[in-house]
Amino acid sequence: MARPKNAFYAQSGGVTSVINASACGVIETARKYPDLIGKVFAGRNGILGALQEDLIDTGKESDAAIRALRYTPSGAFGSARYKLKGLDQNRAEYERLIDVFRAHNIGYFFYNGGGDSQDTCHKVSQIGEELGYPVICVGVPKTIDNDLPFTDCCPGFGSVAKYVATSIREAGYDVASMAATSTKVFVLEVMGRHAGWITAACGLASEKAGEAPHILLFPEIPLDQKAFLARVKETVDTHGFCVIGVSEGIRNLKGQFISDSGLRDAFGHAQLGGVAPVIANLIRSELGYKYHWAVADYLQRAARHLASKTDVRQAYAMGKAAVELAVKGHNAVMPIIERVSDVPYKWKVGQVALADVANQERMMPRDYISPDGFHITAKCRRYLSPLIEGEDYPPYRNGLPDYVRLKLSSVKKKLSTEFKP
Amino acid sequence: MARPKNAFYAQSGGVTSVINASACGVIETARKYPDLIGKVFAGRNGILGALQEDLIDTGKESDAAIRALRYTPSGAFGSARYKLKGLDQNRAEYERLIDVFRAHNIGYFFYNGGGDSQDTCHKVSQIGEELGYPVICVGVPKTIDNDLPFTDCCPGFGSVAKYVATSIREAGYDVASMAATSTKVFVLEVMGRHAGWITAACGLASEKAGEAPHILLFPEIPLDQKAFLARVKETVDTHGFCVIGVSEGIRNLKGQFISDSGLRDAFGHAQLGGVAPVIANLIRSELGYKYHWAVADYLQRAARHLASKTDVRQAYAMGKAAVELAVKGHNAVMPIIERVSDVPYKWKVGQVALADVANQERMMPRDYISPDGFHITAKCRRYLSPLIEGEDYPPYRNGLPDYVRLKLSSVKKKLSTEFKP
Repeated sequence: MARPKNAFYAQSGGVTSVINASACGVIETARKYPDLIGKVFAGRNGILGALQEDLIDTGKESDAAIRALRYTPSGAFGSARYKLKGLDQNRAEYERLIDVFRAHNIGYFFYNGGGDSQDTCHKVSQIGEELGYPVICVGVPKTIDNDLPFTDCCPGFGSVAKYVATSIREAGYDVASMAATSTKVFVLEVMGRHAGWITAACGLASEKAGEAPHILLFPEIPLDQKAFLARVKETVDTHGFCVIGVSEGIRNLKGQFISDSGLRDAFGHAQLGGVAPVIANLIRSELGYKYHWAVADYLQRAARHLASKTDVRQAYAMGKAAVELAVKGHNAVMPIIERVSDVPYKWKVGQVALADVANQERMMPRDYISPDGFHITAKCRRYLSPLIEGEDYPPYRNGLPDYVRLKLSSVKKKLSTEFKP
Repeated sequence: MARPKNAFYAQSGGVTSVINASACGVIETARKYPDLIGKVFAGRNGILGALQEDLIDTGKESDAAIRALRYTPSGAFGSARYKLKGLDQNRAEYERLIDVFRAHNIGYFFYNGGGDSQDTCHKVSQIGEELGYPVICVGVPKTIDNDLPFTDCCPGFGSVAKYVATSIREAGYDVASMAATSTKVFVLEVMGRHAGWITAACGLASEKAGEAPHILLFPEIPLDQKAFLARVKETVDTHGFCVIGVSEGIRNLKGQFISDSGLRDAFGHAQLGGVAPVIANLIRSELGYKYHWAVADYLQRAARHLASKTDVRQAYAMGKAAVELAVKGHNAVMPIIERVSDVPYKWKVGQVALADVANQERMMPRDYISPDGFHITAKCRRYLSPLIEGEDYPPYRNGLPDYVRLKLSSVKKKLSTEFKP
């Protein structure tokens, strides 16, 4: 029997509250195949760890620590916003990766990220072949933006969806209590610059007419200021208050980002970011309502305390499936989630070739947004609802979630050369 | 035996995630004394409901609905930011209250609010006496700001504390993952304009050296820009990233609110509010770090999904104790929480005269803030830690907290006169 090859696992791009559940799935499953997979090395700060030969030996972490990854948000090994260029533009980076893989007897590459990362994963598989050091490359899908193609949803998204829907419902109850004498309008800004999936998830909180949120502003729908303000007024007139969920990426009718619309601080510095304050201020200027606004930012994607059980399970399943595909000899593929039925929600694990995934973005279908552009449709609700099902609470200590910190032991370097990004 | 008198319950000021737990305590306990307390009426939109004779008959709500108040955030009957003026300035309002109480045979007044409300509660007790219609007036403490005197803590605060500490810990894990190639600084803005209790609670998340948050900016400590920036740089140099919790009420060395420091939007409108973006921008301008910021706003005080069990219990206990004091004939008092021991945490219910509570604000002791002004002390931690102990999850339906909506049936008006606020 061939000597087992080691594996390399890396986290990529913006982290989520469940990307570590995928890491847990990868590592726990790899430990079940000692004849095929030797050590699992993780990249310190994602792919940079491979380029810089800065590897973490996950074998030094106890079973309990690895198990705790399942309920620990963030990227435990460090992630990176580092996109490898095309093979033609920067062949040296790919060759460096293969050098490091070869030096550490790495025969499996599991890359946990979004579309760009899957593209990289695909290229690594090609270049390895070309350089006579074949590596089995399997992607593990991750992105809160829910914009990967083929998979029914992306691990990471369901928990953000649950967080924003819960938060806007809770804020809606709050504003409803205050509206008679105080705040009448509340604006919550959520992530999702290009696709409105997270904004749409806010809409799940409103199950009956009149419930918050009353208005959603999607990045897909240019903001028609007049129609929007009329809708705000109508909502306050009818229900006494108005709760709005807004994407960070909304644009005006000219196509400009609202967040770029010229905010300046006292020192004259431009662009603080933040769409919510701009929208809130517009409402006050034009309609005079007292407002409050919130920007959830990282809180939404780090909120493991409120993760969706469905999402956690799927994140783990994707990590597990990636290893199972690899040990079966599948190469340049990514496991995906395939929906079997909406009600009751059933799903299974499928797979797709990385060549097909690369450089495709899945946008929200227009028929998921109501004709007037201000809310979600029943079809959208049917799609989103199962993704936030179930709670999966972390353990608490001293009143706070007891998340794990790994040892992150470095693997001794074997190469004499250094890589400068 | 005297015919039982009805009770009037009102919610006041900014709502919390547990003020309804106090309402639950009041109503459930009142239902145990049918010989002494007849109906419990609630004010629609707080004290305005009494002034406008807009009463809600809580007797029309099922036991299950009242029980559900225990886990439903916001003010279920509507709250009000409406401060009754002094007796000399607006005697008519107090007389109107007594007229309404008399018309509806109300002999008990439970006022659930902060310092101003306890002052009002006290005055109502005085004027009732004077007008020959004595009313037993008992306050129920509530405020996320934790600034009521005598009571060891205020119901509402513990849950906000748990929320901000959890959120900043989670965001800290996130930023730590991203710092090598992306975001190095994260700023979370929290409530508490005058007192730094909520800002201090952020500090609970950092249990070991190097853990987030690294820097806290308190409203009690004027912002020394130079010292602050030096600390941010030092933190990034040492730990690779820096997480900051900042009070909405911080001021510069001249005593001006940072949030008022001249933000203007594209239309030239001043003051959008929001300290976090100002602080984040200052850091980028001076130190060049990539940043993210969040403003939790209402999310923090509405987040019943993450309530502190200690807080929920205390909120309920205060409502229950208020009724028990009233039926024992105590008047113009407020139940309070008295700490018996820190570790293990033990507390009991005490009481204080409303005359003593009125118009006092409890500030954070200087020795709860570290000498350099940027973090909390061990003494502060010892005080705060028990207040966030325990989880008390609401039930979920369709993946979202299943909060109750009451019927809010109106009581038929008996007066022919109207009140205009």
